[in-house]
Amino acid sequence: MKEKESFDAWAKAWRVRFEEAAERALPLKDGPLAGLQEAMRYAVLDGGKRVRALFAYAAGEVTGADASHTDKAALAVEFVHAYSLVHDDLPCMDNDLLRRGKPTCHVKYGVAQAMLAGDALQPEAFKQLVSPELGAQTSVALVAELTLASGADGMCGGQMIDLQHVGQTMDIDLLRMMHAMKTGALIRSAVRMGAMCGDPRVFASVDADLTVYADRMGLAFQIVDDILDVTADTATLGKTAGKDEATCKPTYVSILGLDKARELAKRCLDEALEALERIEASGVCASGATRALAWMADYVIGRNY
Amino acid sequence: MKEKESFDAWAKAWRVRFEEAAERALPLKDGPLAGLQEAMRYAVLDGGKRVRALFAYAAGEVTGADASHTDKAALAVEFVHAYSLVHDDLPCMDNDLLRRGKPTCHVKYGVAQAMLAGDALQPEAFKQLVSPELGAQTSVALVAELTLASGADGMCGGQMIDLQHVGQTMDIDLLRMMHAMKTGALIRSAVRMGAMCGDPRVFASVDADLTVYADRMGLAFQIVDDILDVTADTATLGKTAGKDEATCKPTYVSILGLDKARELAKRCLDEALEALERIEASGVCASGATRALAWMADYVIGRNY
Repeated sequence: MKEKESFDAWAKAWRVRFEEAAERALPLKDGPLAGLQEAMRYAVLDGGKRVRALFAYAAGEVTGADASHTDKAALAVEFVHAYSLVHDDLPCMDNDLLRRGKPTCHVKYGVAQAMLAGDALQPEAFKQLVSPELGAQTSVALVAELTLASGADGMCGGQMIDLQHVGQTMDIDLLRMMHAMKTGALIRSAVRMGAMCGDPRVFASVDADLTVYADRMGLAFQIVDDILDVTADTATLGKTAGKDEATCKPTYVSILGLDKARELAKRCLDEALEALERIEASGVCASGATRALAWMADYVIGRNY
Repeated sequence: MKEKESFDAWAKAWRVRFEEAAERALPLKDGPLAGLQEAMRYAVLDGGKRVRALFAYAAGEVTGADASHTDKAALAVEFVHAYSLVHDDLPCMDNDLLRRGKPTCHVKYGVAQAMLAGDALQPEAFKQLVSPELGAQTSVALVAELTLASGADGMCGGQMIDLQHVGQTMDIDLLRMMHAMKTGALIRSAVRMGAMCGDPRVFASVDADLTVYADRMGLAFQIVDDILDVTADTATLGKTAGKDEATCKPTYVSILGLDKARELAKRCLDEALEALERIEASGVCASGATRALAWMADYVIGRNY
């Protein structure tokens, strides 16, 4: 219980910090560009659990990153995530009307403006990563990481597999591949990019275990998403519940069943925590530096929306 | 006439080189990602005048850039250009069916896949710029340049102004602002990024004049585009001619008239060539190093498709 309370306080503080950073990165504009900026702000601000930002901040603690640096990684991954939601919700894709408890971006601003807002969030994400205070070496590593996570071999590739299989069956291997790319790649990047903002020698030492942790988190996140789609209601989720089944989308629940899906999520949690224990045992970072990542693991598995 | 022949040979050689580099950067794939890659290749390969790539290569000559480095800049700007065309052609935007003499990407692959292919080309562009051989400092400068050119204060912002004014009047100042962002920003980047791939001290010395040159080229390019829309036919253009007038789009021709538009294009050419003369006169680069940029200026103003 004590642990839970500490996580809540930790997450709240970082969420507040993130919202302020996002507000600064996407200021209101006057003139002919006001509409685009407004749609970008609508897509990003005041919504979401900020899971990816929190992963970045938590991983930054492992390598002793300066929070003003981790902000940049957090903004970049959340901007990419936000653009992907805007495009994913469009009529040509999922045609979703509700997101984070609000009308989706294209419902509010029209399809063309929503698409453009999503398009413009991509360079905005990369722009964060070339902030001078990060140093050129770190910037280059961050940009490289984000291009892989968000491109054809990452998020967009996963979207493509998804698109091609709506209403079709999919075996568990393809489902895992799809999610590893569609949501897993960006979660992995959030963790790795947060850690890259700190001491590069520490990052090099923990990279392998951190990546195991991140991959398990990506998988678990999706499994829990699939479970919630059948067990939670629309008001709690802030997006349309029961949609996967209604659209015959292959999910962990539809392929494995609810019990086996829960088992798999639990196994991911265990393996993620073991990876963190190896990092702690290595003594390369300060004792307890993986605390927030362990909280995040419990949070991702235990969340109900 | 001699000059023209030399330009043709120069442009042909660089276009061939560019196509090979693009082919390597977007290899065919097997498996579930084949479709996405195919749509990305369709959007990029085997089409287009490669004006932006040629600008990058030409500017690279000024700063003595290694061609294998300038390739990266050329690929990045052409990938961004290609994605913008794919999204711009979508039904929610211009709803165009013909591009580079071929069916547009969404006609060929469907709207969802075309949008995704466009989305995936953005990280692919930035990926080029963090190639290790460029060096971290150059990479960071290139990424920063491209984020500005392609984002909300550049290309996407220009698209937004365009979108908001279809069928409406626009004064010449807003028209210039729109085009400076929509097409000018990426052309400016093509020139600057090509030059950034060479000697950084030479780049610093020529940057101001090079930017004047690039801005005049961006403006002239759009004016000529508007002129061709009313004077050329669809077969020559490879895209639907007369479309601006049919859709009541404000253009340099509709606002200034054909003669004044031609005059303005000529003035851009003169000012661009003067900027190149200042670079030559400064002696900071090898004599004749601006030759290809001068050719490009003549080409942009004199093109008939």
